[in-house]
Amino acid sequence: MIIGFIGFGRVSSRLAQILSNYECITSCENRSTKTKELIKNSNVKVLKTNKEVAKKSDVLISANSTKNALKVASDYGKYCNGIYLDLNNISPETSQEISLYVTNYVKGAIIGKIEREKPILYLSGEKASNLLFLKEYLDIYFTEDASILKLIRSIYTKSVSASLIESIAIAEKYNLKNDFLKVLSLTEGNNFKSSSISRINNTIKNKDRKIEEIEEIIDYLEDDDLIILNVVLEKFKDL
Amino acid sequence: MIIGFIGFGRVSSRLAQILSNYECITSCENRSTKTKELIKNSNVKVLKTNKEVAKKSDVLISANSTKNALKVASDYGKYCNGIYLDLNNISPETSQEISLYVTNYVKGAIIGKIEREKPILYLSGEKASNLLFLKEYLDIYFTEDASILKLIRSIYTKSVSASLIESIAIAEKYNLKNDFLKVLSLTEGNNFKSSSISRINNTIKNKDRKIEEIEEIIDYLEDDDLIILNVVLEKFKDL
Repeated sequence: MIIGFIGFGRVSSRLAQILSNYECITSCENRSTKTKELIKNSNVKVLKTNKEVAKKSDVLISANSTKNALKVASDYGKYCNGIYLDLNNISPETSQEISLYVTNYVKGAIIGKIEREKPILYLSGEKASNLLFLKEYLDIYFTEDASILKLIRSIYTKSVSASLIESIAIAEKYNLKNDFLKVLSLTEGNNFKSSSISRINNTIKNKDRKIEEIEEIIDYLEDDDLIILNVVLEKFKDL
Repeated sequence: MIIGFIGFGRVSSRLAQILSNYECITSCENRSTKTKELIKNSNVKVLKTNKEVAKKSDVLISANSTKNALKVASDYGKYCNGIYLDLNNISPETSQEISLYVTNYVKGAIIGKIEREKPILYLSGEKASNLLFLKEYLDIYFTEDASILKLIRSIYTKSVSASLIESIAIAEKYNLKNDFLKVLSLTEGNNFKSSSISRINNTIKNKDRKIEEIEEIIDYLEDDDLIILNVVLEKFKDL
């Protein structure tokens, strides 16, 4: 079983680590110095071209930036005879388009942190069940459409982040920030404080990307009832 | 130690049960049939008037409807020589007013369900520490202003309820409601599903009261940055 990676950032390097019982391959073709460094520090075999990687893989994993996902699929999907697993954070529309370039297309969505001991992976597509063997290394779930599921999940999580930011600002105004985090921990779970702080920091750090994601969601869903998400967008822009 | 209750609904009857090691007293004066029934089923001593209850109590607990909290304080506060503990869901403004009628005023806020084995009680006020003896029966915390803390907490919890309602509606549209609840349980904690469903049901059931509460919060805080809470209000009105 050969697992190939096109794109070798945080997700791929973590997966190569987890899946080291298999032969993992990638290529340095068109890769940045930083990526080449990550590849050097992983136990993956390096081939000359992405085309070779695509041809040799039983499972070809595309984990790139959102913007490159479609190009990777159209450039290399045709060489892949195994399963083509897209792990990019793409819209359901892009996912649909990718399926036109690729034969055995499986859409995957990593949920939560890739650094978990057993990262959570939702899969959809006709051939999704072929990847069930990964369940030893990943927490695998199947769904009708992993891309839409991740998108709807993110409506909720982004709204919660924005609600936190709004209410903590008031708490700070009244010098009650610590009491606010404490009182919610009592009913929302022990790790509320740490998870809230990491939620807020993550939002501030990735503000621009999150704004883009919300705009894409709003465009894609065209739903007049998304009134909270529209204000979440404003909130993020004001950060 | 005598603990008196003015107002005898869900909160008082639960507290009388928890604090049954003390002498608990109340009165049926001006009480509804339903309340009289609750009193009959509790192990409290029944005095003729609220005035007598106020006079005899070492701790006088006012647990009434939001609207009656101020009147109870102005009518009976003056007879109370012990601690006057207000447990009503009142605005910081009303709490301020009550303190004018009452000598040993302590503001208390029940957090979460009163049905918990050990209900959570936040206390504020100069004499708050006099109630530390209750910690055997209640989960006691002190804060600068229990009323504002509960208010800010409710900005967050109401916004989360509205975010849930908004995102679940989209999930339902795509037939992904169960997957949505499941995928969030994986990162937000095991009881996410049950707590979310109870959150939504509770919001729908108490819609009118929650709308009133939000309007009061917005009025009280006069903060231009409460943009999410303003849309939460719209969302609740549309339910």
